[in-house]
Amino acid sequence: MRDVAVIGLGMRKWGELWEQSLRTIFTEAAIDALDDAGVDRIDSMYIGCMSGGLFVGQEHLGSMLADYLGQRSLPATRVESACASGGLAVKSAYYEIASGASDVVLAAGVEKMTDVDGNASTYALATASDQEYEAYHGVTFPGLYAMIAHAHMKKYGTTKEQLAQVAVKNHANGSRNPLAQYPYKVDVKTVLESTLIADPLHILDCSPITDGAAAVLLASMDVAKKLAKGRPIVRIAGVGHSTDTIALHARKDLTFLEATQHAARKAYDMAKCGPGELDLVELHDCFTIAEICVIEALGLCERGQGGKAIDQKLTTADGKIPVNVSGGLKSKGHPVGATGVAQILEVAKHLRGEAGERQVKGARRGLTQNMGGTGGSSIVHILEVC
Amino acid sequence: MRDVAVIGLGMRKWGELWEQSLRTIFTEAAIDALDDAGVDRIDSMYIGCMSGGLFVGQEHLGSMLADYLGQRSLPATRVESACASGGLAVKSAYYEIASGASDVVLAAGVEKMTDVDGNASTYALATASDQEYEAYHGVTFPGLYAMIAHAHMKKYGTTKEQLAQVAVKNHANGSRNPLAQYPYKVDVKTVLESTLIADPLHILDCSPITDGAAAVLLASMDVAKKLAKGRPIVRIAGVGHSTDTIALHARKDLTFLEATQHAARKAYDMAKCGPGELDLVELHDCFTIAEICVIEALGLCERGQGGKAIDQKLTTADGKIPVNVSGGLKSKGHPVGATGVAQILEVAKHLRGEAGERQVKGARRGLTQNMGGTGGSSIVHILEVC
Repeated sequence: MRDVAVIGLGMRKWGELWEQSLRTIFTEAAIDALDDAGVDRIDSMYIGCMSGGLFVGQEHLGSMLADYLGQRSLPATRVESACASGGLAVKSAYYEIASGASDVVLAAGVEKMTDVDGNASTYALATASDQEYEAYHGVTFPGLYAMIAHAHMKKYGTTKEQLAQVAVKNHANGSRNPLAQYPYKVDVKTVLESTLIADPLHILDCSPITDGAAAVLLASMDVAKKLAKGRPIVRIAGVGHSTDTIALHARKDLTFLEATQHAARKAYDMAKCGPGELDLVELHDCFTIAEICVIEALGLCERGQGGKAIDQKLTTADGKIPVNVSGGLKSKGHPVGATGVAQILEVAKHLRGEAGERQVKGARRGLTQNMGGTGGSSIVHILEVC
Repeated sequence: MRDVAVIGLGMRKWGELWEQSLRTIFTEAAIDALDDAGVDRIDSMYIGCMSGGLFVGQEHLGSMLADYLGQRSLPATRVESACASGGLAVKSAYYEIASGASDVVLAAGVEKMTDVDGNASTYALATASDQEYEAYHGVTFPGLYAMIAHAHMKKYGTTKEQLAQVAVKNHANGSRNPLAQYPYKVDVKTVLESTLIADPLHILDCSPITDGAAAVLLASMDVAKKLAKGRPIVRIAGVGHSTDTIALHARKDLTFLEATQHAARKAYDMAKCGPGELDLVELHDCFTIAEICVIEALGLCERGQGGKAIDQKLTTADGKIPVNVSGGLKSKGHPVGATGVAQILEVAKHLRGEAGERQVKGARRGLTQNMGGTGGSSIVHILEVC
């Protein structure tokens, strides 16, 4: 296996993009990534998209998007692992290059979620849960994460205020990200007084419905060195992918994300580093409770101590380990198929020193964690400056 | 890149399986493939499925199916390229082993299409076409292939009787396949007098709506040799994957399948053979006209001569190059995500000499061609006995 670098980054502002379609938002991000790298030919491409079928009535996305990118005949593969589809696209592209099969591969993620109404998007998202044992009974994702939150509160004493603090932190970070859907600060009182969705989760504990795309261009180290032109080269040092039961009721412990722990361990082993050696983390805060569970599973704090770690400001932008400096899913938005790719893009920006006013100073190594459903799949990447 | 073998085959009878769900039909096929190989541990798995979202309201299939197979935590990837999703799963598994990243990988395909009514399944299938330029205007796949058929008839003098002969041949073949959905012989008169769907295509020119799964287990040659126990080892000698515009109107020539030709050329080059050196072919006869166009794109006959080749019995079970001895999509059925995997399974059965009364005698090399939409994607594999 050979070294793989992230050589091109493309992403435009996320939001409710009613004037654009899935193919246009993908194409803009993909062209930006190619331009950023200075490349106009690629060997293949992977698209992460959760449900083109339910959101916009369009499957067969690999072929269509290759065509719209002006790359007709390209081998193009759409991969899906619910909200972890973007991370899976990056992983797939990584292995295609690491194996020597290709030199330059595009990994993009896209989701156009606002072309359908709220009921239809809630239904579409619920297909990431177990249709026969969860969705059938009417539970959707806020309800599932609310169960996790209640279990965590009961078992570890986690509080609603700690949950709210996750939203406060991520919106503060997102207020410095011009591409974020909701770049606005909130305070604890606003979160706790916002509409209750599924107790204990208020609407400001939930990530939004978003249209958006993100693209990263990956290449072999030989190609990366030729194209670097003095910019720092960002290498993918570790990759982990694991799955779990998608139905919550079949887990040993509702509060612990085994697939995330398993994927992280693989990535740490591969990168020969541990959670104490990271300069920043972008993780899957689809709900505030998710961030608390993920920092535990990644080993950023002890099991059960995620709420307290938030109190202690461990993960703020100027804390020991900044988490979701981009604003996270919470403030930046969560176009489900694109999220995992945007995480890679954010970390790569910091490692290149191109993250503007939210730059984590001197960042040399960062981790991304992308997750499907309530943790039924998880993909972790570790990126380093060469 | 190292050699990869097909070591396990699993498939049960296809049809309208109203007593079973997507997860059960997948699990049966997957367990049969593992049993056939004598393996109970795998390194990863790929699932080809076109639209779990629209057909059964279930995405996140990789994690769910890994769990039901008793392989929780396994890296599991769902890939989609419309009706070529199964072929794409096999290609993905092939490269994971060829690269040295894994030793034993399951490639499975599954689609549960009869849980929704005819309108909903027609809508779901239409998401393989261009939603904004084709489906939006009301055209569905019988209409799109009818346009191809008219263009072929006008340009090359192809006749309705030649189209019907494709159905007659494939149903005759399928009558010897106990797993086929419609293992019944038909004659030309019956085809031409069957309900007209989209002129010139009658219902017996169309492949059916099917529930079904198929699984093949792939392994490195070292593992394959250890497990062979005297059985012939089937090697994947060539792989090609290409795309085209998914919208028909953007093609230079309605009658020619460029992605298929391109994918086939890559596979022939890799396998160091040509179309004259094949003992059997399983190809994507979603409509009778598709088989005629595909045999041309694969180089089994001259361009434009597909209809005449059918008249000349080139592709019958005892012809020069038997095509779709399994019954093809036409008689065997077409659970869209499973089809490409079932093609690999069929060819492997013949190469092992295990195809029963439809065995192609002395078969040493076979080709599979799987296709998305009206040819917007195509995946070709060439298999050989070692």
